[in-house]
Amino acid sequence: MERLKRVTQPTTLVTGEIPRVDQRNHAFARGMSGDLGPGTAREFRRFITKHPLGAALAGAAGRLASPVEGGIAGTKAPLPEDPTAVSRHIKQLAYFLRADIVGICRLPQYAVYSHDLAGNPVELDHEYAISLVVDQDYDTFRGSTGDDWISGSQSFMAYATSVLLACVMADYIRRLGYPARAHHVFDYQVLIVPLLLLAGIGEICRAGLVLNPFLGTRFKAAVVTTDLPLEPDGPVDFGLQQFCRVCRRCANGCRPGAISDGEQVMINGYEKWPFEADRCSKYRIGNQGGSSCGRCIKVCPWNKPAGRMHDLARGVVKHAPFLAGLLIRMDEALGYGKRDERYKWWLDLEDVDGVLTVPGDRTVASDRR
Amino acid sequence: MERLKRVTQPTTLVTGEIPRVDQRNHAFARGMSGDLGPGTAREFRRFITKHPLGAALAGAAGRLASPVEGGIAGTKAPLPEDPTAVSRHIKQLAYFLRADIVGICRLPQYAVYSHDLAGNPVELDHEYAISLVVDQDYDTFRGSTGDDWISGSQSFMAYATSVLLACVMADYIRRLGYPARAHHVFDYQVLIVPLLLLAGIGEICRAGLVLNPFLGTRFKAAVVTTDLPLEPDGPVDFGLQQFCRVCRRCANGCRPGAISDGEQVMINGYEKWPFEADRCSKYRIGNQGGSSCGRCIKVCPWNKPAGRMHDLARGVVKHAPFLAGLLIRMDEALGYGKRDERYKWWLDLEDVDGVLTVPGDRTVASDRR
Repeated sequence: MERLKRVTQPTTLVTGEIPRVDQRNHAFARGMSGDLGPGTAREFRRFITKHPLGAALAGAAGRLASPVEGGIAGTKAPLPEDPTAVSRHIKQLAYFLRADIVGICRLPQYAVYSHDLAGNPVELDHEYAISLVVDQDYDTFRGSTGDDWISGSQSFMAYATSVLLACVMADYIRRLGYPARAHHVFDYQVLIVPLLLLAGIGEICRAGLVLNPFLGTRFKAAVVTTDLPLEPDGPVDFGLQQFCRVCRRCANGCRPGAISDGEQVMINGYEKWPFEADRCSKYRIGNQGGSSCGRCIKVCPWNKPAGRMHDLARGVVKHAPFLAGLLIRMDEALGYGKRDERYKWWLDLEDVDGVLTVPGDRTVASDRR
Repeated sequence: MERLKRVTQPTTLVTGEIPRVDQRNHAFARGMSGDLGPGTAREFRRFITKHPLGAALAGAAGRLASPVEGGIAGTKAPLPEDPTAVSRHIKQLAYFLRADIVGICRLPQYAVYSHDLAGNPVELDHEYAISLVVDQDYDTFRGSTGDDWISGSQSFMAYATSVLLACVMADYIRRLGYPARAHHVFDYQVLIVPLLLLAGIGEICRAGLVLNPFLGTRFKAAVVTTDLPLEPDGPVDFGLQQFCRVCRRCANGCRPGAISDGEQVMINGYEKWPFEADRCSKYRIGNQGGSSCGRCIKVCPWNKPAGRMHDLARGVVKHAPFLAGLLIRMDEALGYGKRDERYKWWLDLEDVDGVLTVPGDRTVASDRR
């Protein structure tokens, strides 16, 4: 990551004054509150915990989740004066804590929710945001369709790990005498996507997510905001915009049709592909053939392990973008994006009224890949 | 790990009826209770938390630490009937949860404490023990003397991670309808060393720890005990006993002289090198030049990253044990076991009466390597 080319502006055009967002408008919040229908509100309470591993992971993440804030040491610790040295220290700490990727940016106010889920105004004026990224496991995606019974557990394995990371780092920074707050799946005051974009974790892809050149979108992130003096990273440009223009794998693979196969348009100050968040959330929450969904992650050609051939492909995307179409056809011919039964290690189980049963396949079989 | 040669008996000779151990006799328990002197009892309360990162990690691990037990689903889930398939599932789950190594053994009663720290008799009749191993980070050891200010945080990074792993796995197994209990740094009912030995995580080394061929002793472990039907792994033999007979790196590197440079003797039913646990614990707890100690881990020739040359060296130890002495001299000549300043990423800080200060080096400078 440290060798990637940094640019002054994100590759997603951001124009004008970007309005702050009310957390109650987040599609998951709307699903929970009943805005997406009573069935979705009912399923919201069980779409992760209906699988026993998802339930165990969500329980552990919940026990870790607080405190996100706490007392700040009265005396500042003697730290290096150079913010670059402090940034390097914080990044090495993140890797020591087993983060897969870390990046730092300034915290713009448009990335702070205007109101929380309870409708209270959010005020957060920390100067920096540290984004902590945890992989959802490549091998598990190999064995999965992306929306079968392990998807919710993949999310919560990465969430639980990132909660541990963010809470430890925020606590550590407060002990150094600086304000710091952990933001994670159970308690966000910030929008993750713009922070990942500004910190150079990746570029915004067709599916509306931040795509990292080494992980694709196969990750979850938690954030620590702080006033500890840091040196921000810059956004990255590895040629993704041109790639996503040609590739429609996620749009074709999305069962509820939430991802556009058309062109980029201006939305809320960002030039990006339209994305139907309500459709996506309704499908993930209501999926009766599995727990949650990560099909767009699974089928994406950037969902790859480390390797020399994949380094080469990344180089081609960057330096010969006109070959993107060829790469995408090769990727398909090699069977990437398909399910490989040899990698299926989990059990298909569903909690129905307190009893674990083998779920019937309630989706159309021919629709499964 | 799955390709290592398995043997029927551990390479450490275990004879006769091994008596159960009272947890109050553990050297750390004796340090806490005052048996090792009032200074050690006082320092016990701060030897990890006197560094701000150790304090943050211990706090997070503590929040995760319960429950180790809980309700068991009333109906057993439909599982594969073959215990080998269930074992494979449990091991793949461990790797999915980001364990570095996992192994399974039967739980012998001698590995269950007779009494807990409060003096209550311990009863635990689970049939199997699943050992979950988490690396303490090779690069951090490169930059450390082993007993400077990061050592306690290395322990608790691995502990916190293993607590998360063990609690999630135990909860998951209970949800499948089988008893399961997590055992971790804050709440052990079992002795870890014999379980790691029986599960083939490694062999017992000169320092009295279980040494894994890929990680050395650079790890912490948590355990899940359960009645879920499993297929146990066997002990391993990769030639360590002969290696440790020749190598005295840990004995020479141990500042309090807790590790013997002599021969193996029979102790408590095990044929092993004598180890002065009280000296070790007193030094770790009372270390005024750092937080805790992992010198024996740091200086051990098995403390290595993955790599082809190191695979080759492992092969030599196994198949040409008479070359062990040569390997050990090569290792020393290559500078392994020494501190490499370029890898020092942490801050030397000590909490003195609530204020973080840069600690003076209170140990003899010439003693540092």
